[in-house]
Amino acid sequence: MPRWEPNARMRLVEAALELFEERGYDDTSVTQIAERAGLTKTTFFRQFADKREVLSAGQEEHSVLLAEQIAAVPAPTTPLRAVEAALVALASTFPPDRRAFAARVQTVTVSHDELQERSGLKYAGYVTAMRTALAARDVPDMTAAVAADLGLLAFRTAFTRWTESDAGPTLEDLVREALGEIVAASSSLDARTNWRPDHQD
Amino acid sequence: MPRWEPNARMRLVEAALELFEERGYDDTSVTQIAERAGLTKTTFFRQFADKREVLSAGQEEHSVLLAEQIAAVPAPTTPLRAVEAALVALASTFPPDRRAFAARVQTVTVSHDELQERSGLKYAGYVTAMRTALAARDVPDMTAAVAADLGLLAFRTAFTRWTESDAGPTLEDLVREALGEIVAASSSLDARTNWRPDHQD
Repeated sequence: MPRWEPNARMRLVEAALELFEERGYDDTSVTQIAERAGLTKTTFFRQFADKREVLSAGQEEHSVLLAEQIAAVPAPTTPLRAVEAALVALASTFPPDRRAFAARVQTVTVSHDELQERSGLKYAGYVTAMRTALAARDVPDMTAAVAADLGLLAFRTAFTRWTESDAGPTLEDLVREALGEIVAASSSLDARTNWRPDHQD
Repeated sequence: MPRWEPNARMRLVEAALELFEERGYDDTSVTQIAERAGLTKTTFFRQFADKREVLSAGQEEHSVLLAEQIAAVPAPTTPLRAVEAALVALASTFPPDRRAFAARVQTVTVSHDELQERSGLKYAGYVTAMRTALAARDVPDMTAAVAADLGLLAFRTAFTRWTESDAGPTLEDLVREALGEIVAASSSLDARTNWRPDHQD
């Protein structure tokens, strides 16, 4: 048996997605995914720990990329702009021709608690990667936490918008746009609080 | 067999926590949890869908409480203060004598991916509840999203601080304190951006 199958990973992801769409996540087995991809179960388990992992492919690389980008921005960059640069770099790894595929993954994910949980853990990993990389640049912990959190909100908002239309702006542009809206919303939170300076809890 | 066991839920949670601590999460079965609690497996499954659910008890009630609190604040309250009121109300359901227990749950949770995922889904549920309740009060969607996200960050920060010390401030006070720090951090993100008005991506 060959130790390496060409495109095994991508073939398994595509097969899993098809089966989840056709039969549902719960009624799909690893054996069926491997069969559909024309590969063995052993090959499957060389690529993924279990069925839930299939649609979270690339997570580790994404977190590394985010951390590296934040480490690489010029010194005077603000935490928010460092996060933006990192997320735009991540966005650029999603080419326009993956939009339809990403939309299918999104649809399957939201319909299964287990996949949603896995996806939540992936995003928590992004936040930790960004937060740690910011802290390594001497950004105060709470500032790093807020920048990473709002950055993730921007990325998820942008990703949803990206998968909801067949054409339109790139994911990079949508990330910049969403982050702009979030910054505006977060200063309006402040403004509305200040607008009532007599407010007491 | 009685359809209702006194304190069944709490006894099962306590038994599960003990076993997770003693044997690890993976090596603990539902049967063992039920046995330790002096109850049957059937009683277990009347209370929880599976092993992972045991430590997330109360999640549904918590989300309902958050939504109700946000619906109930006086009309002129800002989104941020509505979120604060809701989270302080949630915090007040954790009395000081649950601190040690909460700390044990926290320790077990962070050491298991599956429990962490479950916990992530719980928190995502809190965010959705707050976001939806704010939207129902005509708060713009992105403002609602930011308020709910920063609110959750405050609650999680406060909860960690609460479980890390044996005495000290109540969870309510820690929530208020953390939210204050987060608001300060988030306006410092803005300030630092404005400080470099020539910044271009």
